[in-house]
Amino acid sequence: MAGNSFGTLFRFTTFGESHGPQIGCVVDGVPAGLSLSEADIQPDLDRRKPGTSKYVTQRREGDEVSIVSGVFEGRTTGSPIGLIIHNGDQRSKDYGEIRDQFRPGHADFTYWQKYGLRDYRGGGRSSARETAMRVAAGAIAEVILRELPPSPIIVRGALVAMGGHGLDRGAWDWDQVAENAFFCPDAKAATAWAEALDQLRKDGNSAGGVIEVVADGVPAGLGQPIYDKLDSDIAAALMTINAAKGVEIGDGFTAAALNGVGNADEMEADTNGLPRFTSNHAGGILGGLSTGQPVVARLAIKPTSSILTPRRSLNRFGEAVEVVTKGRHDPCVAIRGVPVAEAMMAIVLADHLLQARADGTPLTPRPWDTKED
Amino acid sequence: MAGNSFGTLFRFTTFGESHGPQIGCVVDGVPAGLSLSEADIQPDLDRRKPGTSKYVTQRREGDEVSIVSGVFEGRTTGSPIGLIIHNGDQRSKDYGEIRDQFRPGHADFTYWQKYGLRDYRGGGRSSARETAMRVAAGAIAEVILRELPPSPIIVRGALVAMGGHGLDRGAWDWDQVAENAFFCPDAKAATAWAEALDQLRKDGNSAGGVIEVVADGVPAGLGQPIYDKLDSDIAAALMTINAAKGVEIGDGFTAAALNGVGNADEMEADTNGLPRFTSNHAGGILGGLSTGQPVVARLAIKPTSSILTPRRSLNRFGEAVEVVTKGRHDPCVAIRGVPVAEAMMAIVLADHLLQARADGTPLTPRPWDTKED
Amino acid sequence: MAGNSFGTLFRFTTFGESHGPQIGCVVDGVPAGLSLSEADIQPDLDRRKPGTSKYVTQRREGDEVSIVSGVFEGRTTGSPIGLIIHNGDQRSKDYGEIRDQFRPGHADFTYWQKYGLRDYRGGGRSSARETAMRVAAGAIAEVILRELPPSPIIVRGALVAMGGHGLDRGAWDWDQVAENAFFCPDAKAATAWAEALDQLRKDGNSAGGVIEVVADGVPAGLGQPIYDKLDSDIAAALMTINAAKGVEIGDGFTAAALNGVGNADEMEADTNGLPRFTSNHAGGILGGLSTGQPVVARLAIKPTSSILTPRRSLNRFGEAVEVVTKGRHDPCVAIRGVPVAEAMMAIVLADHLLQARADGTPLTPRPWDTKED
Amino acid sequence: MAGNSFGTLFRFTTFGESHGPQIGCVVDGVPAGLSLSEADIQPDLDRRKPGTSKYVTQRREGDEVSIVSGVFEGRTTGSPIGLIIHNGDQRSKDYGEIRDQFRPGHADFTYWQKYGLRDYRGGGRSSARETAMRVAAGAIAEVILRELPPSPIIVRGALVAMGGHGLDRGAWDWDQVAENAFFCPDAKAATAWAEALDQLRKDGNSAGGVIEVVADGVPAGLGQPIYDKLDSDIAAALMTINAAKGVEIGDGFTAAALNGVGNADEMEADTNGLPRFTSNHAGGILGGLSTGQPVVARLAIKPTSSILTPRRSLNRFGEAVEVVTKGRHDPCVAIRGVPVAEAMMAIVLADHLLQARADGTPLTPRPWDTKED
Repeated sequence: MAGNSFGTLFRFTTFGESHGPQIGCVVDGVPAGLSLSEADIQPDLDRRKPGTSKYVTQRREGDEVSIVSGVFEGRTTGSPIGLIIHNGDQRSKDYGEIRDQFRPGHADFTYWQKYGLRDYRGGGRSSARETAMRVAAGAIAEVILRELPPSPIIVRGALVAMGGHGLDRGAWDWDQVAENAFFCPDAKAATAWAEALDQLRKDGNSAGGVIEVVADGVPAGLGQPIYDKLDSDIAAALMTINAAKGVEIGDGFTAAALNGVGNADEMEADTNGLPRFTSNHAGGILGGLSTGQPVVARLAIKPTSSILTPRRSLNRFGEAVEVVTKGRHDPCVAIRGVPVAEAMMAIVLADHLLQARADGTPLTPRPWDTKED
Repeated sequence: MAGNSFGTLFRFTTFGESHGPQIGCVVDGVPAGLSLSEADIQPDLDRRKPGTSKYVTQRREGDEVSIVSGVFEGRTTGSPIGLIIHNGDQRSKDYGEIRDQFRPGHADFTYWQKYGLRDYRGGGRSSARETAMRVAAGAIAEVILRELPPSPIIVRGALVAMGGHGLDRGAWDWDQVAENAFFCPDAKAATAWAEALDQLRKDGNSAGGVIEVVADGVPAGLGQPIYDKLDSDIAAALMTINAAKGVEIGDGFTAAALNGVGNADEMEADTNGLPRFTSNHAGGILGGLSTGQPVVARLAIKPTSSILTPRRSLNRFGEAVEVVTKGRHDPCVAIRGVPVAEAMMAIVLADHLLQARADGTPLTPRPWDTKED
Repeated sequence: MAGNSFGTLFRFTTFGESHGPQIGCVVDGVPAGLSLSEADIQPDLDRRKPGTSKYVTQRREGDEVSIVSGVFEGRTTGSPIGLIIHNGDQRSKDYGEIRDQFRPGHADFTYWQKYGLRDYRGGGRSSARETAMRVAAGAIAEVILRELPPSPIIVRGALVAMGGHGLDRGAWDWDQVAENAFFCPDAKAATAWAEALDQLRKDGNSAGGVIEVVADGVPAGLGQPIYDKLDSDIAAALMTINAAKGVEIGDGFTAAALNGVGNADEMEADTNGLPRFTSNHAGGILGGLSTGQPVVARLAIKPTSSILTPRRSLNRFGEAVEVVTKGRHDPCVAIRGVPVAEAMMAIVLADHLLQARADGTPLTPRPWDTKED
Repeated sequence: MAGNSFGTLFRFTTFGESHGPQIGCVVDGVPAGLSLSEADIQPDLDRRKPGTSKYVTQRREGDEVSIVSGVFEGRTTGSPIGLIIHNGDQRSKDYGEIRDQFRPGHADFTYWQKYGLRDYRGGGRSSARETAMRVAAGAIAEVILRELPPSPIIVRGALVAMGGHGLDRGAWDWDQVAENAFFCPDAKAATAWAEALDQLRKDGNSAGGVIEVVADGVPAGLGQPIYDKLDSDIAAALMTINAAKGVEIGDGFTAAALNGVGNADEMEADTNGLPRFTSNHAGGILGGLSTGQPVVARLAIKPTSSILTPRRSLNRFGEAVEVVTKGRHDPCVAIRGVPVAEAMMAIVLADHLLQARADGTPLTPRPWDTKED
């Protein structure tokens, strides 16, 4: 309950603060016998890590992960996997202002109200630095999705809107995602976004964005029926990401404006006689269970709260202050949210894959009933 | 895990199918000594129940709830509260078609894939009939929010869009919500929606909608910091509601298109020296914890899948079929989703209120620090 | 947390008080497709029910169970199974004394201290009547142990000591258990116990006892390694039974007095080359995991607290009182504890069987490694 | 579920293997504002650590704990507390035999069956080395019991039997516990035990023992009523300790041989008019809730399985082998089990203290009802 663990059968717990000696994570529930080393995790961390472009924070962190338990001779043992990242760039600085001020849009005020004291250095526990450990846990979830039947389930993410600017879905190219600083699948849009964000930064301002995560290869039947629905768990998972303000599945809020005829995903048999949907308004989930189509979720991220433009606030003495956040901040936190959102989706799917094994859910299409039944 | 329970300290489990003898619910974690009787629950059930207008299903259900345990001489005893509703209108009919067909937009196919067999009568377990028990559990949560300090926390809901038609927020009147068939706070919009929905029904079609739920009186500091965040729990709770496809908190997806200057909720001291925000883009939640402002969430509901217009699908023998859903269906399930959404919000808040007691979170504004600290 | 649910993947929640209208139970996590009807449950309930001999309470209860959900056309659907028993013999009587008095050995004082009020009728929630629902849930667990691979796992229980009187293990005959009023596997001992208990009753006194539960057919590898160990879960399960004061696995407290040489369970290959232990001091569990041998647990039950001999106590007004418990009470509650203990063991094993499926634990002996490995 | 976490509101997760680079623990649910440093934890670790006498393993470990998160400027922040101990004495040695053999009484065979592979070095995950982290978590639980109302709750443990040799309860002296190598409260018994254990070691043999843990200052009303009973949670907690085979509360198995008259704990008012029991057969728990008396539990520990006397077994190739365990082993693991048992008791009590806060359970004696009620 205490708020630092996530998942049911695939379950991880994170610990550590932005400027403490290390951040860490314990991943429990990983089946034995899977091939795993730091090399499976580090590339995902590198995608999330600071300092990779001018559109993300310039804090310098190697984000080098060590597996300290649960793996023996290159294979998972079924024991909990401990992951550690040492914090490198704990820049010694004067925290005087942030120590006392409640920065608008941050958790400073709410943590102070709840706890009475807080580790203010770099945001402490509420810093997005914690998400590095989610990415690490997500990389392990991806090993499960890749190695356990029905493999592989592939999770990919992209930024589909930045500061109110969208993209051309017709130009979607997954390969482009690795080619620009925005994880944007439309090269042209990425160029336009870069210009827009440059201007915002110059203005001491920041931008929000929308992340889309797509999982391919998800078998039909994953999820639970009423309260641990696949979509409910995805919503919970994504909404825990820093600065998240909205989640939608499939057509999402657009579906609310559709009518029933337009929103229906019709079914037919494919050439192998297997069930196929002719559209995917549902985003791959019906009644809380996966349909076998791609699972599609989108996540709204608010603009970075740390900006150079002064905002009025209070300090912990009840005094009016003006807050100006200098320093190394992402002008659009949605960008680095992409690998985090992928990780959380992978975690939810790995969890439900293990749940399906407990439930006896078939992981391949169920044979049609025969009429004699 | 098995998917029929929700909550941590305030935890309920539902059981029962649409056309079984009864549906029921066990609510655990309710503190002892609270005043409770069926009269606290029935009015909420009556708001959700079928047959109240031509815009909701005409199935006739008294939805009379009985408390069968956990209450003694009018007060909760701390023991689990058992709630039972007997299913009345189990209209004997030929289920032949629904028995074998996978109705588009329903959970027929996914349940069949997961379980191999299903109670097809009226949708069985996946029917929205289950939501009656959520409303009952929600009414008990509301007793907690009303009776335990800092009381009262008030949860209210409304439909803010229907079939793509919005409303005039300037005309918002909570009292109007009880006055029309749409739980719409804008009387004029309600009239327009009625016309639009009449036409859709005539066309064998249906509509989606957007529900807004607002909680007033929530003290600052409710929630957990990383993974059981208040907004994450709200998202999970709302997303479990039948036909839900999206959730947002505060400005939600709109926030993703704002910039940091525009999205900042500034703070000041009120005339009592207490902290006050000058806007509420955040929807009352920062860093997973409540700010003391109203908590605001919105929920996208897809259009009713059961429509008279034929849609192509398969049956469980793998044969192509054409599905036409006759019978008593809500043309816009979002309408009856309003009391359900309120209930889920109340449940999440009651749970976090109990968590705050365990954590030692102060439920009134924390006194300002003194400079000597 | 609220204390009315048990289990992880096989999870049940009970509700209801001794003299309320009904007691009930919701069993969640039962895989779909198992054959189940009331006829699978009723015989177990009949073994536990009151009034079957003069050594158990004479309260008259049919204890007729109804399945109200989760089963369709004779098979489990994967949905939660609701079970209801209506309370029949709610004898109208003057509860004046029990209402105010704290009966020694009962939960009257502790419930009053915790909750401030209590449903005193027949012990309310703390009555052993609740155990009827455990027996019902246990019967469903037994269906899982019987129908899912590696079937069958058989759970049996017996009373092995009564009022300090033991039995002759050499005369152990499982068939005898159904033949006497004590669930005693040694017919001679049963006769001697009957005499002893007759005398105790005549003296206004009561007896404790020791229950042994044995599970045959448990595959090696069930359990979790550190904190959800099979033995830890069994201990927790058995210790929840009313009047339980001790639990041991295998040689238990006797093992603490053994030395390492004498306590060692040596291994050898059987004629099929499969691993076999030459003794079972361990009670079938090593390192929290089953060994493939019979799982053996014993449970100490204190003597019935409700006795005719007056005992000094207080009432809720702080006054000294003398408590004499008249009425229909089991002179040795350990007797009816036998089917309850069996049920709890079956529940723990069913839960761990489902966990093993999630973990990918093989349910048959793992093939020996080859030397090239 | 995956078996490496314990507790509900006070919840900790351990990770690490005997010969990995480090072992660690994350403690979640610790309220903010408590004073905490390594100095609160290290003394407890020092009591458990190897090498302190000839009756415990001679492995040399400093067992120096570092707090890596959750504490800021000497106070808990409400964030998860990460604890790390680096493994020092990873003696490089030939693990050839232990690598392949199934040592009798150890988890070698069961881990191999469940997981297929295992970190065999020093027992890997199943090594009692993991209990160092429980002691660390327990020290934090003790801070809660000491600092939060109603403070203080004091948990103490002792060895009350060793190798079948008991002690004189009349000579019980808590101060003696720190004075001998056995945590024995009776100095004479300790001397006798030393002789007996010397002889067993000389014979290549080992001894079991019984640990008693007592908690003073526990307020009445802690616990949950049916399935998370205080005694059930204590039983589960103690039974997770390596080599544990039995748990009893209060008179335990002895109570099963008592009669109802003799077992009754009568009540009276003390000179302040507060409730007092005249005896404590119940061990401080009735109906799953604490009575306000000392909570008393005993734990049976089997003799050390690692002995010099050869025992017959199998290896993972299915071959017969003779196992002789050389090296640094505790001749009586029950000794070092004492601080571990104390820790687990403290953890359960801290958890239930937080639960009581959520439930609204009063932590001081409830005022008597008045007759007008």
